[in-house]
Amino acid sequence: MADKIVDRLALIGIGLIGSSIARVVRRDGLAGHVAVQTRRPETLERARSLDLGDSYTTDAADAVRDADLVIVCVPVGASGAVAEAIAPALKTGAIVSDVGSTKTSVIAQMAPHIPPGVRLVPAHPIAGTEHSGPDAGFADLFRNRWCLITPPEGTDETAVDLVTRFWTACGANTDIMTPDHHDMVLAITSHVPHLIAYNIVGTAAELEEVTNSEVMKFSAGGFRDFTRIAASDPTMWRDVFLNNREAVLEMLGRFTEDLTALQRAIRWGDGDALFDLFTRTRAIRRGIIEYGQETEAPDFGRSPGAGKPAQKPE
Amino acid sequence: MADKIVDRLALIGIGLIGSSIARVVRRDGLAGHVAVQTRRPETLERARSLDLGDSYTTDAADAVRDADLVIVCVPVGASGAVAEAIAPALKTGAIVSDVGSTKTSVIAQMAPHIPPGVRLVPAHPIAGTEHSGPDAGFADLFRNRWCLITPPEGTDETAVDLVTRFWTACGANTDIMTPDHHDMVLAITSHVPHLIAYNIVGTAAELEEVTNSEVMKFSAGGFRDFTRIAASDPTMWRDVFLNNREAVLEMLGRFTEDLTALQRAIRWGDGDALFDLFTRTRAIRRGIIEYGQETEAPDFGRSPGAGKPAQKPE
Ligand SMILES: NC(=O)c1ccc[n+]([C@@H]2O[C@H](COP(=O)([O-])OP(=O)(O)OC[C@H]3O[C@@H](n4cnc5c(N)ncnc54)[C@H](OP(=O)(O)O)[C@@H]3O)[C@@H](O)[C@H]2O)c1
Ligand SMILES: NC(=O)c1ccc[n+]([C@@H]2O[C@H](COP(=O)([O-])OP(=O)(O)OC[C@H]3O[C@@H](n4cnc5c(N)ncnc54)[C@H](OP(=O)(O)O)[C@@H]3O)[C@@H](O)[C@H]2O)c1
Repeated sequence: MADKIVDRLALIGIGLIGSSIARVVRRDGLAGHVAVQTRRPETLERARSLDLGDSYTTDAADAVRDADLVIVCVPVGASGAVAEAIAPALKTGAIVSDVGSTKTSVIAQMAPHIPPGVRLVPAHPIAGTEHSGPDAGFADLFRNRWCLITPPEGTDETAVDLVTRFWTACGANTDIMTPDHHDMVLAITSHVPHLIAYNIVGTAAELEEVTNSEVMKFSAGGFRDFTRIAASDPTMWRDVFLNNREAVLEMLGRFTEDLTALQRAIRWGDGDALFDLFTRTRAIRRGIIEYGQETEAPDFGRSPGAGKPAQKPE
Repeated sequence: MADKIVDRLALIGIGLIGSSIARVVRRDGLAGHVAVQTRRPETLERARSLDLGDSYTTDAADAVRDADLVIVCVPVGASGAVAEAIAPALKTGAIVSDVGSTKTSVIAQMAPHIPPGVRLVPAHPIAGTEHSGPDAGFADLFRNRWCLITPPEGTDETAVDLVTRFWTACGANTDIMTPDHHDMVLAITSHVPHLIAYNIVGTAAELEEVTNSEVMKFSAGGFRDFTRIAASDPTMWRDVFLNNREAVLEMLGRFTEDLTALQRAIRWGDGDALFDLFTRTRAIRRGIIEYGQETEAPDFGRSPGAGKPAQKPE
């Protein structure tokens, strides 16, 4: 994991994902120079004090000048504007990649701006936490996780190879997928789970019969797991839903149909139907553990009594 | 935490919850004698080799004879049959409690069998993991968690006090609540979250467009959190839904209404509505952390790259 992959890397956006890339690249010497760009001066200063790069600027065009590999790490709704801003400064032969959670829309936004002689190789590392910003990143974020690479048809193979080698060096497993299929897969493995987590936390917060303080105190029965997901960055997730609308609505439709059937089973007292579903679902978790994507430890290995010492807050 | 609370404790059922009680009681000397009962000989043998009690039997009536406190730790659908079985052997002055996840139905099932002179004090420790059986328990399961005590109207105060002292000694915070309100609160903090987790894992498993292997490999985007909940014991959860039908259907109705609105916001591209909800939901997690019910560590403190070492399983 310690060979240089590119001479000059430019990171456009230095939040959770951008800063995690910066950390692993610098730890393992994967680039000769890391140029860090971010929109706001305060984020840039934070990146500088965390020593995330070799050069720092708020000007995206400045950052990408002479870069061999540019990785755009901003909310997916900003991809088009970023591509437009960097286009004039890209050198011939450069590779532009990204980390956005949706792919069809990112390609539609970026491709029109990419100059001839520059290769667009979109990618999506499936790794993250509920925190954001440059402080939230860490070098091991991508270790043992998957990074999906979704080159538009006809993309130069050598560019795809370089992006693949880059992510492998960052510790990830890689796979190639069409942008459309990516968006469908992620709708069910990520986008709809986030949507329903946000939704149930919203429902709980608005109830009149149950106070917010009751919801918070008695959350250990399962609800608190959902609140982790529903504490994710609002801008990033707004952009995801606006930019993967069709696949999300399609998968949400399936979810709702199945939920209606489950509701009916409860109404009718059909214990066998419930037992049957509750048995089938266990195989999926076993599979995830076998694929090395999850810990086997109960409760995610969360320490017993997780949280501050016992107290009665009222 | 080291004072004896009762002379003779009987545990009816010795799975995750029963065995966790046994462990903390024996570690901290909270009872003079722990009588362990379970239905199947193989579970009883397991409990014996784990040294969970002072005496062992598969006969519930035998176990409760002379007990000062009986705690029923079986799936809620079995509460009535257990109450009927132990009733003739209960001594005058005994307290019968339980740990079931639903309360109105448990009281309806058990109360008719409780002999005069015996006090029924139902309770529900809000603590658990996705694992079950006597091996899954641990002494610290209840530490810093809440235990709700739901005495039917007119219950003898001294009996409620003893159960409160017992759970406090087990490390829990306690609160008194009516059985109806308990069932409403738990519907939203536990039962509906489990239902939608089971549901989305079921939906994902049945898709034709996305293979099960894709679902498993690319689950780190959020889905894998749901699979933990959906790996919980099928019998326990079937019984919960059959025994808290009304509150679950009510809360599920609210969830579905809110989800319809969210779906519409996505369809219409209403980014402000999405952003607004995604911002409000963060306050609930902050509250849970402030109430000491959750770790602040990102990703539940799950270690980066959680799972087995990187491998490409195909
Ligand atoms: N978080 C995850 O779990 C995760 C996982 C995989 C992929 N992704 C994808 O990774 C990308 C970045 O996510 P993140 O979690 O790293 O976000 P983050 O921590 O919030 O950081 C966002 C970065 O983008 C910049 N930015 C925000 N809005 C911008 C705009 N309108 N124009 C230009 N720059 C803008 C921010 O700059 P300032 O701070 O200077 O404003 C910051 O540098 C997103 O596309 C997301 O879909 C996220
Ligand atoms: N798991 C949680 O997260 C959690 C949290 C709070 C409360 N609870 C409540 O605690 C209770 C026990 O749950 P658990 O997780 O400890 O379950 P568990 O680990 O599956 O253990 C269940 C115990 O009940 C016995 N049992 C099962 N079916 C029975 C029947 N029909 N009649 C008599 N005994 C029967 C089992 O005996 P054999 O093994 O001998 O068959 C075993 O001893 C349930 O009411 C549940 O709602 C659970």
